[in-house]
Amino acid sequence: MDRVPVLKIGDVLLVSIQVDMSDQTAVTLQDDLADRIVATGCHGVIIDITALDIVDSFIGRMLSTIASISKVLDAETVVVGMRPAVAITLVELGLSLNGIRTALNVERGMDLIAASRDDDFGAYEPESPDAEPVAS
Amino acid sequence: MDRVPVLKIGDVLLVSIQVDMSDQTAVTLQDDLADRIVATGCHGVIIDITALDIVDSFIGRMLSTIASISKVLDAETVVVGMRPAVAITLVELGLSLNGIRTALNVERGMDLIAASRDDDFGAYEPESPDAEPVAS
Repeated sequence: MDRVPVLKIGDVLLVSIQVDMSDQTAVTLQDDLADRIVATGCHGVIIDITALDIVDSFIGRMLSTIASISKVLDAETVVVGMRPAVAITLVELGLSLNGIRTALNVERGMDLIAASRDDDFGAYEPESPDAEPVAS
Repeated sequence: MDRVPVLKIGDVLLVSIQVDMSDQTAVTLQDDLADRIVATGCHGVIIDITALDIVDSFIGRMLSTIASISKVLDAETVVVGMRPAVAITLVELGLSLNGIRTALNVERGMDLIAASRDDDFGAYEPESPDAEPVAS
């Protein structure tokens, strides 16, 4: 049980972290996630940390690394399910989880990723009603 | 980390089992799931066992109990992500997971639950084209 499963749900990969992360488990998870993003073409990664009682600097760095890897592979990372006590501890430790988006639960995380993709596509839209008004 | 998180995704509750289940963890999971089914009104429970190397009689009984509790609360249980080796061991141990539906992955499990709900609604459909032909 030294491998964190990566579940595909629609356009999103879901990872629920429940076990104590060792260096090896973290590296394996990063490899698995990168492989799955490329294999499935998913555009979102949701990491659920409901089960974590504490997020220390090791976990914080792992989350940041996963977010960076996903970004390079054109996928957005959202961390969900953070407990209030974990958020308080994070701030007290001076860890700000730079570059990581958060949401309250999995569903809101999925909404965030879907909305973000819509925005991206909007930016590349070749035709815009404002730019080219149609003659009436 | 003695609590397995229950994640709500649409009309389905998702549980990913990754830790060694003790008696206490199993009872807590059953309680949590029953509470969440009632609180959310979800009609499906998906239990992911990708991370499990072995399913012994204790886990098998726990899955059966969860399926029975869910059924009473009008929710269907689907076990997903079983490894080939686990399936072989299950059969060799003579455990047949009675009353438990299985699917290859989370997405197929969700399809199964959605299809099952459609069937149920179909059975209670007051009007059927076959039963009451419309005069032309």
